[in-house]
Amino acid sequence: MNKSINELLTEMTLSEKASICAGLNMWMTKGIERLNIPPVHMYDGTNGIRKTNSDEEMGITTENVPATCYPTGSAIGSSWNTDLLYEVGVALGRESKAMDVELLLGPGVNMKRTPLGGRNFEYYSEDPCLTGELGASFINGIQSEGVGASLKHFAGNNQEFEKMVTSSEIDERTLREIYLSAFERIIKKSDPWTVMCSYNLLNGTYTSENEHLLNDILREEWGYEGVVLSDWTAVNDRIRGLKAGLDLEMPGPAHYNTKAIVEAIQNGALSEEQLNRSVARVLKLVERVTSNQATDSYGDQNYHALARKAAAESIVLLKNENAILPLQPDSISSIAVIGRFAKKPRIQGAGSAKVTPTRVDIPWDEIKELAGATVTLGYAEGYPEDDAIQEDLIKESVSLAMNSDVAVLFVGQPEYAESEMRDLKSIDLPEHQVKLIQAVAAVQPKCIVVTSSGSALVMRPWVQLVPGVVHSWLSGQGMGRAIAEVLFGQENPSGKLSETFPVKLSDNPSHMRIRGENGKLYYREGLFVGYRYYDRKELAPQFPFGHGLSYTSFSYTDLEVAQVEKGVTVSFQLKNTGKRKGKEVVQLYVHDEECNWTRPEKELKAFAKIKLEPGEKRRIVFELEERDFSYYNTKYNRWVAESGFFQIALGSSSRDIRITERLHCNFGKEEVTFHKFSLLSEWLSDSTAKKVLEECLDEMNEHVTDKVYLNEEFVGFWEDFPVVKLFQMFGQNWMIDRSPDEVIQELIERVEKAR
Amino acid sequence: MNKSINELLTEMTLSEKASICAGLNMWMTKGIERLNIPPVHMYDGTNGIRKTNSDEEMGITTENVPATCYPTGSAIGSSWNTDLLYEVGVALGRESKAMDVELLLGPGVNMKRTPLGGRNFEYYSEDPCLTGELGASFINGIQSEGVGASLKHFAGNNQEFEKMVTSSEIDERTLREIYLSAFERIIKKSDPWTVMCSYNLLNGTYTSENEHLLNDILREEWGYEGVVLSDWTAVNDRIRGLKAGLDLEMPGPAHYNTKAIVEAIQNGALSEEQLNRSVARVLKLVERVTSNQATDSYGDQNYHALARKAAAESIVLLKNENAILPLQPDSISSIAVIGRFAKKPRIQGAGSAKVTPTRVDIPWDEIKELAGATVTLGYAEGYPEDDAIQEDLIKESVSLAMNSDVAVLFVGQPEYAESEMRDLKSIDLPEHQVKLIQAVAAVQPKCIVVTSSGSALVMRPWVQLVPGVVHSWLSGQGMGRAIAEVLFGQENPSGKLSETFPVKLSDNPSHMRIRGENGKLYYREGLFVGYRYYDRKELAPQFPFGHGLSYTSFSYTDLEVAQVEKGVTVSFQLKNTGKRKGKEVVQLYVHDEECNWTRPEKELKAFAKIKLEPGEKRRIVFELEERDFSYYNTKYNRWVAESGFFQIALGSSSRDIRITERLHCNFGKEEVTFHKFSLLSEWLSDSTAKKVLEECLDEMNEHVTDKVYLNEEFVGFWEDFPVVKLFQMFGQNWMIDRSPDEVIQELIERVEKAR
Repeated sequence: MNKSINELLTEMTLSEKASICAGLNMWMTKGIERLNIPPVHMYDGTNGIRKTNSDEEMGITTENVPATCYPTGSAIGSSWNTDLLYEVGVALGRESKAMDVELLLGPGVNMKRTPLGGRNFEYYSEDPCLTGELGASFINGIQSEGVGASLKHFAGNNQEFEKMVTSSEIDERTLREIYLSAFERIIKKSDPWTVMCSYNLLNGTYTSENEHLLNDILREEWGYEGVVLSDWTAVNDRIRGLKAGLDLEMPGPAHYNTKAIVEAIQNGALSEEQLNRSVARVLKLVERVTSNQATDSYGDQNYHALARKAAAESIVLLKNENAILPLQPDSISSIAVIGRFAKKPRIQGAGSAKVTPTRVDIPWDEIKELAGATVTLGYAEGYPEDDAIQEDLIKESVSLAMNSDVAVLFVGQPEYAESEMRDLKSIDLPEHQVKLIQAVAAVQPKCIVVTSSGSALVMRPWVQLVPGVVHSWLSGQGMGRAIAEVLFGQENPSGKLSETFPVKLSDNPSHMRIRGENGKLYYREGLFVGYRYYDRKELAPQFPFGHGLSYTSFSYTDLEVAQVEKGVTVSFQLKNTGKRKGKEVVQLYVHDEECNWTRPEKELKAFAKIKLEPGEKRRIVFELEERDFSYYNTKYNRWVAESGFFQIALGSSSRDIRITERLHCNFGKEEVTFHKFSLLSEWLSDSTAKKVLEECLDEMNEHVTDKVYLNEEFVGFWEDFPVVKLFQMFGQNWMIDRSPDEVIQELIERVEKAR
Repeated sequence: MNKSINELLTEMTLSEKASICAGLNMWMTKGIERLNIPPVHMYDGTNGIRKTNSDEEMGITTENVPATCYPTGSAIGSSWNTDLLYEVGVALGRESKAMDVELLLGPGVNMKRTPLGGRNFEYYSEDPCLTGELGASFINGIQSEGVGASLKHFAGNNQEFEKMVTSSEIDERTLREIYLSAFERIIKKSDPWTVMCSYNLLNGTYTSENEHLLNDILREEWGYEGVVLSDWTAVNDRIRGLKAGLDLEMPGPAHYNTKAIVEAIQNGALSEEQLNRSVARVLKLVERVTSNQATDSYGDQNYHALARKAAAESIVLLKNENAILPLQPDSISSIAVIGRFAKKPRIQGAGSAKVTPTRVDIPWDEIKELAGATVTLGYAEGYPEDDAIQEDLIKESVSLAMNSDVAVLFVGQPEYAESEMRDLKSIDLPEHQVKLIQAVAAVQPKCIVVTSSGSALVMRPWVQLVPGVVHSWLSGQGMGRAIAEVLFGQENPSGKLSETFPVKLSDNPSHMRIRGENGKLYYREGLFVGYRYYDRKELAPQFPFGHGLSYTSFSYTDLEVAQVEKGVTVSFQLKNTGKRKGKEVVQLYVHDEECNWTRPEKELKAFAKIKLEPGEKRRIVFELEERDFSYYNTKYNRWVAESGFFQIALGSSSRDIRITERLHCNFGKEEVTFHKFSLLSEWLSDSTAKKVLEECLDEMNEHVTDKVYLNEEFVGFWEDFPVVKLFQMFGQNWMIDRSPDEVIQELIERVEKAR
């Protein structure tokens, strides 16, 4: 563009302004040739670029332009590695430019509330701190290359069932502490060029026109100045949307809405300032995109290497009894590789995030290569593509396993189970896989199960039967190689679960009513999502949030905590106490011991992934801010940190806390403000108010039979009673000319005067 | 009264009308001498009459006029005996008349949502069917004597913490199915003369002025015509209250509100019809009370016998390994009776329901009497009155237990723990009692623990150490005798838990946030209260709802179920297969196997307490109605029974189901009605709509590149998408002159025409 946004706003006709607030087609914004405003090209992509063959095409069910397929969100979320996310972001930015993609529609950062969410594989975690840090790094990576990112889906869309017509009913505190928290962190740390609203309603209003969400919170509180665009068809009432701050409708051209906008301006339903605000943001996006300078892209081969590296960091070693892993080719002569997924790996989910990969590593091939010539590999399919239980496949597998030194089973959610637009029915493995594992484990004690899925899995029927479990998630086109490297120890596993794996589905906090009813889905567990719930309920998960084993070990010592200004500095020493180099994900949790409001037993507030050589030690330092000690107080409608004792806990998982310290933090104190319904206990907690009340009761007692004396017995019973109600109860024969309301108002005034 | 209500309404002045809508003092309504309208005398009482010494006196912390103290609500709720409740009601009616009490302020029928509720001891159960049946019988008993009852606390008050300033936030379906259901049943089955509103707000509005609750539901839907009175000081805005249907404010005289009412009529804020409606109801109550004919009362001695009988039916035998109970005096030479409660039993809770008893049975005395002269009884105090752990008391107990044939320990919640206005802090036994039990059980394997409390108790630290556990609740002045009779087998225990006893407090469904915050208490577990939750979460309780052992055994056979009209008849044969006569509480649960909306795994829909001699058998018949198969559908705002398969289960507890049957019930089918956001799957489920849609898509496809064909793959992905959004997604280049809204409206019209 060769004109400033202000100039353009002056020169554009009303109709041009209205039309630029919708796309040109499925994947482009509308350019205006006469004013030299070019269009912006955008495509889907959370773990890779899904560029369709034409800009008029949805392309969900077809092949698209090949692009690198990185680990999906839940996989890379388990890397806990912000540097890796940045690196992948940079690579995606470069690949985007090479493919003429100017805006990449990701990342997806919704919370994994239920493991049944069909789109969970796209999202990072059940925790907002982890999600927020990873999302910000990813966006900073993409945007460092001059390509825009789109932070989605804003907000409160955590499952697929009837999402277009369902209102997520989330109380304000839960919304702030859980569902908006990652978005807030990302907005502040990475300033994404665009934010994409979600399909659902939030507390009764579509997010595409939700004033509270888009204006009050995103714009006013967080100061976001980029473009808010609609998820594809998420626009409901375009005028309400513009007023709330939804700048760009997709897909376009939506002629009917261009017309509606013009009419609304003409009849005064919408002001031209409101329209200009959105137009200016769209123009600003065009400006950002066009100032994009081409850089050298590294070739496809390098992207694939990065995809492998990212997969390796994502894989989580869940169980490793008797150090069954890593496999030692020199002490093994044969390996049974069992299960279709060994030859047909599931590398990603389905829907708008499904990438047509440039190539795919096959676990079988990679295992073969790493095992070397001295080890005999056998393969058995194990289970068919469909749900049928084929005993012959199981028998064949058992026989192979019996005649091998070790068995590696590849199992997981079937292809059809995980998709955008469709929630999972179950998080158990299909029955044929469970039977397979049980049968193989019965004959081969050296049994390693490699699972793949985008959500937590239930492992209760078989996990105790096998010594080794590796969770590979859906880790993209490099997954096959990464699994092989983990199995043989070329890669020391360093992934940690980004979500809790429950013992059974019904343990999950959202299990009370798993779907919306009559268009309302209540987030009933409130704050207690993921590990916050398992902690609160004292419920043991199968594998906790943050869990992941390594081939080496780490020690945590010398913890020091200190309050500085209004924050807290935490430091300790981490040491690799094992014999291999490895990476530890250090997790810092905070617990408020004294808060009047219910708070989780622990909340992740910081983490770091640290690489150490055997024997190496390093002092790790975290700086916490007041916000890290705060909860969202709906009385004051702001974040509040209450003075008092906090626990700082450092651990290798949410249930493997290694070192803790109690710390008294001083964040000041709120003054009691009195109102009509202030309780007796509140009146007594303030010396001035107490005196005023006592004088008043003395007066009352002169007129009544059943007199009130503020002795221990009386206060013990009535302390939760509002004082105004005490007058109603005991002062009836005193309040001849006055009402209890008048009496209490007078008292409050007396307190205020006396202060 | 010698004039009709209509005549009185004509003759009363406006000011008289206004004044009769509040009490005269703490415990009387206002009479009007000039018109021969007498006052009505009312007093507290859910398990006995709490008549104060003066009508100006609250009397919570003082002794009052002695009256029979029956088992508290949670105790008698565990009798599951509607005949017993009726009998106690009759006795209370007679005693009321003898004491000049015309209106008895009970029963309390709120659901026991959390075991921490300070007033739980007053309430019957966690289940609305059990509560409703018992409450209706109790009221029918009282009112058969010409004394009024007051059904309370209406509604949604289920714990004490800041209840006067806290809004119970309950979704409509949960409100109907759980929190209002018992009230509804009782209104319909017993027509209580009065209903008392609660202190709390319900979904943002005080129940004392809640139109939806008092008018729409109670009056309009349920057809209630009696008096609604306020809990003491529960009135907030008197005019709003009158409009909503709150007839009588207590306590009075509330001159300020009499004045406010007169002013509101004069300035038109309230219509005289609205006032007359309430005045007429108050006059009707006066009429009912004055037509009360004195009957012969049975003397105090008979009331005490009934108190004993009621206590015996309430006691629940929780555990009885190796038939440790009943004790056989001829095979025992000594009994160690341990624990303060053996000599100072807790027979009731604290607050407005606390009765000054006419006499109190002491367990120690009664055990001594029933044990007979041949058995030596020893006593040890076991633990002090306060929280202190006194090792000497434990030592003394251990020594006594070692030197006795059997030990009976009396433990329970301490006196101060359970009270109106104060929630419990814990449902564990105090530490000194736990240590006592553990120490005694270590030396005396024949150990029986008798527990008392008004709420569930956690028994995990000790229950596996003892063979016998008897839960005596807070069973009133006859409790001591009843315990002794159960211990020695003179009474065959027949109580069944009216609430789930969890393994630990955090298992309870309400545990997520145990208190309100900023004046809001979210009922987050929704429908899943009590056993409905433990079922849904597949969580094992310590002792399940409906559990209770007997000294005999029963068999359930020959189940027959059949749909008749729109109801279902269920019958089966119950047999006493043991050697003692006994009573079985037969429980009938229903489960909807196919409902689209989430429903509990089982819901109690009928029960009966059946007395059988050894070897006796009887055919038991239950008649279920369509309502027993229904859930409250918030789309239609009414109860809906969906056609399909249901499971009918009969059992001796909620987790001891003895016999089940599947039954297909036909309750008709709702026709699909189309609206703007109807989903693709809905359009395809109706043949007419499908045809209309297909024609429309054919037309659309002529104008667009990415065409829509309703094949399996397309439908599989998009079925949850509203059709209007499909037009937005795929029809942009077709909708040049029309909007998606217009297109969908036209389609809906075409479907309606074609039908």
